[in-house]
Amino acid sequence: MGDYHTPRGVAVPPPKPFFWAVRTALKETFFPDDPFRQFKNQPPSRKFVLGLQYLMPILEWAPRYTFQFFKSDLVAGITIASLAVPQGISYANLASLQPIVGLYSSFVPPLIYAMFGSSRDVAVGTVAVASLLLTSMIGGVVHPYENPKLYFQLAMTATFFSGILQTALGLLRLGFIVDFLSHATIVGFMGGAATIVCLQQLKGMLGLVHFTRGTDMVSVLKSVFTQVHQWRWESAVLGCLFLFFLLLTRYFSKRKPAFFWINAMAPLMSVILGSILVYLTHAENHGVQVIGYLKKGLNPPSLSDLAFGSPYLVTAIKTGAVTGIIALAEGIAVGRTFSMFKNYHIDGNKEMIAFGLMNIAGSCTSCYLTTGPFSRTAVNFNAGCKSAVSNIVMATAVMITLLFLTPLFHYTPQVVLSSIIIAAMLGLIDYEAAIHLWKVDKFDFVVCMSAYIGVVFVSVEIGLIIAVTMSMLRLLLSIARPRTYVLGNIPNTMTYRSIDQYPNANNVPGMLILHIDAPIYFANSNYLRERITRWIYEEEDRVKSCGEASLHYVILDVSAVGSIDTSGMSMLDEVKKDLDKKGLKLVLANPGSEVMKKLDKTEFIQNIGQEWIYLTVGEAVGACNFMLHTCKRTPPTLRMPPAVELTAQDNV
Amino acid sequence: MGDYHTPRGVAVPPPKPFFWAVRTALKETFFPDDPFRQFKNQPPSRKFVLGLQYLMPILEWAPRYTFQFFKSDLVAGITIASLAVPQGISYANLASLQPIVGLYSSFVPPLIYAMFGSSRDVAVGTVAVASLLLTSMIGGVVHPYENPKLYFQLAMTATFFSGILQTALGLLRLGFIVDFLSHATIVGFMGGAATIVCLQQLKGMLGLVHFTRGTDMVSVLKSVFTQVHQWRWESAVLGCLFLFFLLLTRYFSKRKPAFFWINAMAPLMSVILGSILVYLTHAENHGVQVIGYLKKGLNPPSLSDLAFGSPYLVTAIKTGAVTGIIALAEGIAVGRTFSMFKNYHIDGNKEMIAFGLMNIAGSCTSCYLTTGPFSRTAVNFNAGCKSAVSNIVMATAVMITLLFLTPLFHYTPQVVLSSIIIAAMLGLIDYEAAIHLWKVDKFDFVVCMSAYIGVVFVSVEIGLIIAVTMSMLRLLLSIARPRTYVLGNIPNTMTYRSIDQYPNANNVPGMLILHIDAPIYFANSNYLRERITRWIYEEEDRVKSCGEASLHYVILDVSAVGSIDTSGMSMLDEVKKDLDKKGLKLVLANPGSEVMKKLDKTEFIQNIGQEWIYLTVGEAVGACNFMLHTCKRTPPTLRMPPAVELTAQDNV
Repeated sequence: MGDYHTPRGVAVPPPKPFFWAVRTALKETFFPDDPFRQFKNQPPSRKFVLGLQYLMPILEWAPRYTFQFFKSDLVAGITIASLAVPQGISYANLASLQPIVGLYSSFVPPLIYAMFGSSRDVAVGTVAVASLLLTSMIGGVVHPYENPKLYFQLAMTATFFSGILQTALGLLRLGFIVDFLSHATIVGFMGGAATIVCLQQLKGMLGLVHFTRGTDMVSVLKSVFTQVHQWRWESAVLGCLFLFFLLLTRYFSKRKPAFFWINAMAPLMSVILGSILVYLTHAENHGVQVIGYLKKGLNPPSLSDLAFGSPYLVTAIKTGAVTGIIALAEGIAVGRTFSMFKNYHIDGNKEMIAFGLMNIAGSCTSCYLTTGPFSRTAVNFNAGCKSAVSNIVMATAVMITLLFLTPLFHYTPQVVLSSIIIAAMLGLIDYEAAIHLWKVDKFDFVVCMSAYIGVVFVSVEIGLIIAVTMSMLRLLLSIARPRTYVLGNIPNTMTYRSIDQYPNANNVPGMLILHIDAPIYFANSNYLRERITRWIYEEEDRVKSCGEASLHYVILDVSAVGSIDTSGMSMLDEVKKDLDKKGLKLVLANPGSEVMKKLDKTEFIQNIGQEWIYLTVGEAVGACNFMLHTCKRTPPTLRMPPAVELTAQDNV
Repeated sequence: MGDYHTPRGVAVPPPKPFFWAVRTALKETFFPDDPFRQFKNQPPSRKFVLGLQYLMPILEWAPRYTFQFFKSDLVAGITIASLAVPQGISYANLASLQPIVGLYSSFVPPLIYAMFGSSRDVAVGTVAVASLLLTSMIGGVVHPYENPKLYFQLAMTATFFSGILQTALGLLRLGFIVDFLSHATIVGFMGGAATIVCLQQLKGMLGLVHFTRGTDMVSVLKSVFTQVHQWRWESAVLGCLFLFFLLLTRYFSKRKPAFFWINAMAPLMSVILGSILVYLTHAENHGVQVIGYLKKGLNPPSLSDLAFGSPYLVTAIKTGAVTGIIALAEGIAVGRTFSMFKNYHIDGNKEMIAFGLMNIAGSCTSCYLTTGPFSRTAVNFNAGCKSAVSNIVMATAVMITLLFLTPLFHYTPQVVLSSIIIAAMLGLIDYEAAIHLWKVDKFDFVVCMSAYIGVVFVSVEIGLIIAVTMSMLRLLLSIARPRTYVLGNIPNTMTYRSIDQYPNANNVPGMLILHIDAPIYFANSNYLRERITRWIYEEEDRVKSCGEASLHYVILDVSAVGSIDTSGMSMLDEVKKDLDKKGLKLVLANPGSEVMKKLDKTEFIQNIGQEWIYLTVGEAVGACNFMLHTCKRTPPTLRMPPAVELTAQDNV
């Protein structure tokens, strides 16, 4: 750390042009990953090609696509199609839409995604949580079975707005909004939603006809247990059998990853087995509900179904926003996770545009909200997909199903669909993650549990709102109540560290060294002033009781103060005045460039004295010690020119 | 910094009992000023007395009160009473309440505050902004002149809820909520409100009878200029004369502070002069509106007027909440400012309780919202007040007015009241503060201006909401986009600082030293991962183009990372994996106690290797250099025992 009797001044950063500063700040905020790096120093024609490829990644990878890749993608595509068909029907059920809409939704969106998406692994499809939210939010204003036409229109409208929102977020580079859904929130929220979805499947499992529209545990359980005499044992037995089968295949696949396809094929197998069983035994006449008639043919257009004039437009927009954000959070996280396995980079904002476009296109072709669900993507990855072509293969398989195979689903029992949903949902209740949260971060655990409890006992939206609010409060609280701690000298070094963390660090006689652990903003400036005052009188008490040398200097280590606003500057001013009155001297150590700028602009540097601002705590302590023992506390102006400060400004 | 070939490990802080940690965290959050310090080591009887004195500060200072003090307080009290009477009437006008309510409000609340308040300088009274908000919010649902009874009831109910909210915030020690109204927000908001209030006074100044109920500039100006033929020149001339007189006295007082009383007495003088003038000239018959009949007698009880059953209860609660918070923000800030002049401490939370109680009592005795207004408090301070007794004197003077002097105000012209309001409001438009904000912090300026524009062109509430939202966004953005920067070695030292701030700092060959300037939370972990990746490839590009030694180590200086959550830990894990793939080694420097705890709990320490965590950047660089040049990058496990870490845990 050099000779501390010649401390160097702290540089005021060279002034920068205003517009340059604004541009840099905007770039850091919206383009932290610097997506245009590849465009630099390229001829215009190449820039055009790169631009097209940037917009449609398929143009980038298609020319390099080989037959080897296609073989892998073919296998993967067929595998996910076998999952997509029964899952599509099940989730459409959950969304209170006609089963066929689930199949439609596995046809158009994957094709759009294949063109615009940048992930090689994401498999597109509907998800349980968004389906449940649709039932809960739109079902809250329009009854899905009494007014199916309007309900369908609102679902399409909501999907349309999801798409618009997602595209807009991507275009405006606001993808970081999704980051505000913390991992803890998502674990709790998904777990809660999965619990509710499982409970709701009791309707199908027990063959109940009437059921609550509520999504909280109390109304669902009430609905189940007030109808005990309506329970159909045939349905229940069938359901349990298939559930057992599905869980068994999953357990088996988990133990031997090479047999992942057993797990992937199990839902389709269940559907086929169940349908044959019902067909042979005519169980549909004995309390086992079946899907019934499914219309043949591809997606009918639904542009005219977008209900912009509906009195429920606000509900549709709200539903679209909530489900859109949730779907993005899942899709982006899934894409990111798998890109890390294969070590390629995906751009979150570009992915949002891809998801958004696929939902806009979907809403015009009778598809409801789709994203990149974790389960289907994992199967795709395990099946060895190489590119988005596996999505095209899946879409083709679904197309064939829509064109020719829908009659085969006539006898598919509802209870099989319920078992498929339950089996999928049980995987989403990630209690291990919750335990991990408890171990690592108690507050994250509390956020997670409140999301879970909110979803399970109140409603899906409320649970989400509670969890997001709590996460925000944590952020705001971390700013409103930053840590401050006393630093001590680590023996035989010039290093100063927290006395709490390093019990062997020693207080420096005559000085109080305080470390402030956050930017200073209006939200914490009053707190910091009070806390600093308290540290000082606590230190004075301690010094008195120990009979140590009395306090002369308060050194504020502001290394961790990344930024300071006008309220923060007033606070420093007040602290300075307060200390002056007490006969103490304020010394600053290591202000960063933002803080130095502000100190300079408010003339606090002149106020405190340039010579009382040091580059390191060690230098500040050295200078204070020197003063204490020789100069009787007059600032060492003459002996110590602020060398670095001048250099810094000269260099510019 | 010692010999850097023997780096010391970083201490994992000694584990603390869970409940102890929770207690400490709660104490830091809610009792940062340690209000119970004086109770420590006291006998129970003393504790009881201290407790009573804590609740009612009057019990603490009354025994020490002397006749000398009383003489000063008497002068100050009479001075503020002379201001309170005309201001009370004016602001009641502004609040669309009967003028007499303004006088009532200067009688009961000051008495309550004198008992419970801890400030010696605050003078209690109504304020313009809260009065305006009352008109704008309650006036939005109930017309104040068509249904004065209901309007009055709602105003009382709103005041009651303000009081309840203020008391509750104080009791729950949630005073820091007020801190979220930043200085910039308040400057803009107050300026905007003052502008609107001034414009609204054109009604009184021009003697208009019909006027808009809107509070935005457009509707007010429209209302003024569509009625040009209704303007009364008598009224306008009188108004301008008095306004000139008031501004002149203020200018004079400002230049010679000893003549503060001229400014303080000017409003009462204007009222007296104006009344005499009208009485003599019978100007009330020539377009000069007068106050008219004021009921004699003290405050009538209004407990039965609290309209809890009203259909407008929600509006009343909302108005109460907004005005209550604004009033608190002003009152607390004023109390704090003047306590600093006289160097005594006031407890914000206790002040809130005092304000709350005085508003609850007020709402039961026909008083509307009161707080500690800046103007009146400044006059009180200048008049030499010594304690809250000046409030009692003021209340007594107002009582005498209410009992005997109300008929004197019969001929007081409205236009004088308007001039008084305008003169007071012009002082609130603090353009100098706005210029200061622009100079020091552009973002604060933007917040200030949006509050101003929102208030002036939309509405008072919207302006406030915009400003608060923007301030919050700034806080959240500062977390979502923390600064990261490259550190370099300052020549001839072991100190490492930002290369941007210190242009003479040098890059260290083979290493990239990154400083992260904020806690790592879910909101920024994705950003940080992307940004770190980008720093690395930018550094690799730079190294290549300069032909320097290739990159081997990435040193993360996490000194400023005060805290990290589970998402942040996953991010570190991912960065580590990413670097491993690239063949780079991750090194951490100076993790704080919170971070070390998390590193320990998630077993990241084992993952990265204890020997790759250093106490200072200097030591990390030293060790990496040593590896680079001798050991060929195998970790120096055998040579460097983690000495401090063991010590830290042994000491506990």
